[in-house]
Amino acid sequence: MRGYGMYSIDNVGWLEKDKPVCGPLDAIVRPTIIAPCSSDIHVAHGGSGPKENLILGHEAVGIVEEVGQYVRRFKPGDLVAVPCVTPNWLSRGVQNFRSFSHDRGPFGSFKFVGEKDGVMAECFHVNQADPNLAHIRPGVEPEAALMTVDMMSTGFHGVELADIGIGEKVVVIGIGPIGLMAIAAAALRGASQIIAVGTRPRAREVAVEYGASEVISYRDGPLDQQVMDLTRGKGAHKVVVAGGGPEAFADAIRMTRPNGVISNVNFFDVKDNIAIRPLDWGLGMGDKDIRGSFCPGGGKRIQRLINMIEYKRIDPTKMISHRFHGFDSIPEAFELMDKKSPDLIKPVVYLD
Amino acid sequence: MRGYGMYSIDNVGWLEKDKPVCGPLDAIVRPTIIAPCSSDIHVAHGGSGPKENLILGHEAVGIVEEVGQYVRRFKPGDLVAVPCVTPNWLSRGVQNFRSFSHDRGPFGSFKFVGEKDGVMAECFHVNQADPNLAHIRPGVEPEAALMTVDMMSTGFHGVELADIGIGEKVVVIGIGPIGLMAIAAAALRGASQIIAVGTRPRAREVAVEYGASEVISYRDGPLDQQVMDLTRGKGAHKVVVAGGGPEAFADAIRMTRPNGVISNVNFFDVKDNIAIRPLDWGLGMGDKDIRGSFCPGGGKRIQRLINMIEYKRIDPTKMISHRFHGFDSIPEAFELMDKKSPDLIKPVVYLD
Amino acid sequence: MRGYGMYSIDNVGWLEKDKPVCGPLDAIVRPTIIAPCSSDIHVAHGGSGPKENLILGHEAVGIVEEVGQYVRRFKPGDLVAVPCVTPNWLSRGVQNFRSFSHDRGPFGSFKFVGEKDGVMAECFHVNQADPNLAHIRPGVEPEAALMTVDMMSTGFHGVELADIGIGEKVVVIGIGPIGLMAIAAAALRGASQIIAVGTRPRAREVAVEYGASEVISYRDGPLDQQVMDLTRGKGAHKVVVAGGGPEAFADAIRMTRPNGVISNVNFFDVKDNIAIRPLDWGLGMGDKDIRGSFCPGGGKRIQRLINMIEYKRIDPTKMISHRFHGFDSIPEAFELMDKKSPDLIKPVVYLD
Amino acid sequence: MRGYGMYSIDNVGWLEKDKPVCGPLDAIVRPTIIAPCSSDIHVAHGGSGPKENLILGHEAVGIVEEVGQYVRRFKPGDLVAVPCVTPNWLSRGVQNFRSFSHDRGPFGSFKFVGEKDGVMAECFHVNQADPNLAHIRPGVEPEAALMTVDMMSTGFHGVELADIGIGEKVVVIGIGPIGLMAIAAAALRGASQIIAVGTRPRAREVAVEYGASEVISYRDGPLDQQVMDLTRGKGAHKVVVAGGGPEAFADAIRMTRPNGVISNVNFFDVKDNIAIRPLDWGLGMGDKDIRGSFCPGGGKRIQRLINMIEYKRIDPTKMISHRFHGFDSIPEAFELMDKKSPDLIKPVVYLD
Repeated sequence: MRGYGMYSIDNVGWLEKDKPVCGPLDAIVRPTIIAPCSSDIHVAHGGSGPKENLILGHEAVGIVEEVGQYVRRFKPGDLVAVPCVTPNWLSRGVQNFRSFSHDRGPFGSFKFVGEKDGVMAECFHVNQADPNLAHIRPGVEPEAALMTVDMMSTGFHGVELADIGIGEKVVVIGIGPIGLMAIAAAALRGASQIIAVGTRPRAREVAVEYGASEVISYRDGPLDQQVMDLTRGKGAHKVVVAGGGPEAFADAIRMTRPNGVISNVNFFDVKDNIAIRPLDWGLGMGDKDIRGSFCPGGGKRIQRLINMIEYKRIDPTKMISHRFHGFDSIPEAFELMDKKSPDLIKPVVYLD
Repeated sequence: MRGYGMYSIDNVGWLEKDKPVCGPLDAIVRPTIIAPCSSDIHVAHGGSGPKENLILGHEAVGIVEEVGQYVRRFKPGDLVAVPCVTPNWLSRGVQNFRSFSHDRGPFGSFKFVGEKDGVMAECFHVNQADPNLAHIRPGVEPEAALMTVDMMSTGFHGVELADIGIGEKVVVIGIGPIGLMAIAAAALRGASQIIAVGTRPRAREVAVEYGASEVISYRDGPLDQQVMDLTRGKGAHKVVVAGGGPEAFADAIRMTRPNGVISNVNFFDVKDNIAIRPLDWGLGMGDKDIRGSFCPGGGKRIQRLINMIEYKRIDPTKMISHRFHGFDSIPEAFELMDKKSPDLIKPVVYLD
Repeated sequence: MRGYGMYSIDNVGWLEKDKPVCGPLDAIVRPTIIAPCSSDIHVAHGGSGPKENLILGHEAVGIVEEVGQYVRRFKPGDLVAVPCVTPNWLSRGVQNFRSFSHDRGPFGSFKFVGEKDGVMAECFHVNQADPNLAHIRPGVEPEAALMTVDMMSTGFHGVELADIGIGEKVVVIGIGPIGLMAIAAAALRGASQIIAVGTRPRAREVAVEYGASEVISYRDGPLDQQVMDLTRGKGAHKVVVAGGGPEAFADAIRMTRPNGVISNVNFFDVKDNIAIRPLDWGLGMGDKDIRGSFCPGGGKRIQRLINMIEYKRIDPTKMISHRFHGFDSIPEAFELMDKKSPDLIKPVVYLD
Repeated sequence: MRGYGMYSIDNVGWLEKDKPVCGPLDAIVRPTIIAPCSSDIHVAHGGSGPKENLILGHEAVGIVEEVGQYVRRFKPGDLVAVPCVTPNWLSRGVQNFRSFSHDRGPFGSFKFVGEKDGVMAECFHVNQADPNLAHIRPGVEPEAALMTVDMMSTGFHGVELADIGIGEKVVVIGIGPIGLMAIAAAALRGASQIIAVGTRPRAREVAVEYGASEVISYRDGPLDQQVMDLTRGKGAHKVVVAGGGPEAFADAIRMTRPNGVISNVNFFDVKDNIAIRPLDWGLGMGDKDIRGSFCPGGGKRIQRLINMIEYKRIDPTKMISHRFHGFDSIPEAFELMDKKSPDLIKPVVYLD
């Protein structure tokens, strides 16, 4: 079968591979809409080390083609959303009450691209279909459901991690798709003032549509100073970091009040120098929690996010800036993502 | 000075009293808008035992007339919202991390009507002004701020207590002002489906405006069965009880899923027979938490709720069904509340 | 193979059954030590409805005889502790952050006796061996490990559910094995005063050894009054209910302070009338949480409890009041449990 | 009156000052036992900036000499423990549910030495006596109670912040008094393995008495590698940092498992370079929380810790390595602390 991916670092294109084999707990899914993600680009450029002959992509909705003999909740023909994080639920690592993300070890629950081929293919393998897939019921747009599998789940998780209380003031750094979903989630968790940080014009408009009170930019001065000015000198209760580098991260700590949280869902580079300046952090005693996590795993999570779409609590399709059609348009979508055109937020590719 | 209240049980009218004295930490406030509450009615009819010669009312915004010598944040002339629960912050009872409601003992933080004259007077006393009052800044409608001091704070608290997660399914029993604010809060905490329970036509409309997906009624069959039908046989993740009696409470337990919460902000009568039916509660082991609390105390809480109005996250004035003008119209508003006209949701009285 | 169980209600004895079949994720275990539990007795007498031809028992340590083809962490010959609750980790019900107890529905994770034969047999079946078994390493007494699989896990859970803070005052109602483990756990979570409630002399001694400050009895007056007297009139911060009926439960609510928790790990009968008296519960607004749960599931839980034995944090074998030897002594142990001799705490049966 | 303190940086000695004035909510206390603390030394050497003519000391028990007119719970002659952190409970900063430490702003609740004279004097001022003092009842050794006001409260807080679960594996870095109390608290919260890090021989012995399973040293190789070796290659669930510099902090992050917590109660210097190495922190997504706080404030906290002594849950006097007698021996105790003799853990000075 055909898939789009990387031959080697910086070298992408069509790959020809065997169709994946379905284990007894698993499913084979034929994607109907996929979305390239900036982390696919990151991997293609070697960001997670040398990889070869790997199909990329971890955001898909599709049709179940085949299921293993022990699968009970799904059958061929079902329309499903595929979480980008699919834990091995038989591992010990999921038996805690904080996250299901690190099944057999750190990041173990991230299978697509992480340890096997991704979803930009004629079909792909899903481990443990019952706990890991989610049905898309009639009345929910498949492209809206597609937004849940990573963007919405990760952005919302940044906000859940920040433990936002009713009426609190929140800063969201970054207005890519993750940041935009964090803005929407901050509003959906009851924040009062929501200050977004970003520069891209189209994304700034969407940030306001999702609930940002103000959108500030790195270009207009130090972030922490701008936040202080907008919060009567007090700073934010909670900051969600969904973009920016170590400098923005340091700003985030500084702009946070005591008893606050800096919640990171941003991907740092192994070479980044993340520093905590002692004065910003109350010399170690300032009651500013620093947390970092990524997209939670499993089908129930995604089902609940789809429920939010079904009940009109959010419309994540506002983020979709580009729609491509046909399997052969994957490279074009991928390239758009790689080059980051100014009007880009999130592209999707309809495969049929 | 003149105030409206009860001479004795079932005997209400105008009272003449001395103006209250301002202690060194306290304030005297002249109310500009007040709202009678169903618990004032309850007290007038003897629901909290015999009381005599007591000015009623615990929902007010007003102008600070006088402050004690140690008050720093407020001064005469300030426009303020007055929380209905004003803890003694020097008591030990507030030094826990769950609630500030029981300062020197159970319910100790509820001072107005509870242990001293209420707010339906030419002026009234506020203990510990600095921690207990909240400024109303320009741009916030005073009548909107008035809705925060009990209705919004209590309704939201029911939802906070229920610990609603993103995408969960929530039932709110009761669509009086507390129930309506619980519906709004459930939406603001990220619920997906929100099933409201109530019968009054105008309130049902407002329930939908605040985010109810469906509104069901006692008249259409057993509540738990209706909820089961609306949730594909699974029940609710969380139930907020803001009305109904012991029967509805039993229904609430039954309709809740394992790992769910029944969160009560309803006032039970001392004679009610609240029963937990063992089968409904998993024979004691069903992982269904039963919680009950009332309006949280203090000025910071109310300030944060006012922030939500300032940032347009909610408009609580949709609840105001009747507006009266002039001090002398208090009795009329009170009587409206007592008789519960079918189109009543919440009345307010502008005093000047 | 031979097993001990019930032909029908009130009719126990030896059963002859086929050896269970090992599924691809499962294991077959040959028990080496088992312990009858009061809930086995309960089931034998029809407490969970009519059951027939069912092997009883859900507390065992043993040797792995056979594993399915996908099992990775266990192999024949391994010495293991078998949790009494063994969730189906492929179900959706475990994907929440509160408990793993209700996999496909309420109580779904309780398989032994609940939905299949128990452990009092020559061998028994364990679903999903990898997530559900726990190794017993050299240096840990198997009979100590046996105490973790239900008694210690459930008693500790009562305390975890009560969310005991450093220095709080705790009441534990009941001094059977679950209550004794709750006492030990209360001490291990940092309680100051621990008041135990029970009458059996030997168990009272062990209660003190595990950390009870005082042991009171139903015979010496109303429980809540005794607790008030012992706590300077203030009551308990947290109460763990591990015994007693509806009356003791009502006492528990009454003796709890505002912002407290009543945590139930007791098994109520379907006919019990559990009442919440409004005054005891602050008329619904007293900030007294009522929670109820049972033994948490999975191997990681049990592994951590075994770690506590390995590191000498607790010696659960103090509870073992009777040791039997040989497969044929199971009926005698079972009868002892059924008749509840005065010196009984917990019997174990060594099978070889 | 006479007090011991600093004329200026690095210049300590006896100061003559006016007796403090008692406000209407306050108390004047005559200390009977005090303990110098390493942070007094830190301040004397300019660690918190230039200070002049300041009495040092923030750990004391004593006798109430005078109370303000609104004080109700305390009267002259009462024996009290004085928390080192005494919030202004009338400030807004305490109205949150995470800490009471930052009343009018960061660290605002730390008054002694922080914003006024300390306790090493003939008498000293306590703001808001009712919420901030704690009675020492007969049966509790005053020198044991003295250990609660900072050492025990801070060390325990490090463990509370780390949110230690039953059976988890914990590392405590540093075995000064705070670290020793963190070890004791880890045992009291139900940790299984507790690995302490430190080199001073006497303190290592006490660490084991308080519950350390192993004591490792910087001198025997990289800390994280030693911890990995002692935990079968898996690392710690939680790490409490109660000593060491940025290097140990980086080690702490590295040795923590996903879903773990690094809990800091150590005082960093403004010039320290605290770095989070991306790989150690899962590139920002490793689910390792980093928290930092200091001694919680208020009298209820200290009362609960005193309760733990009363009920024999802990004996903090094992830490007292040196006892001095008489007001005039304060300088000797202070110098001992400054020079850190090898057998020093904690000195106390009996003043009468």
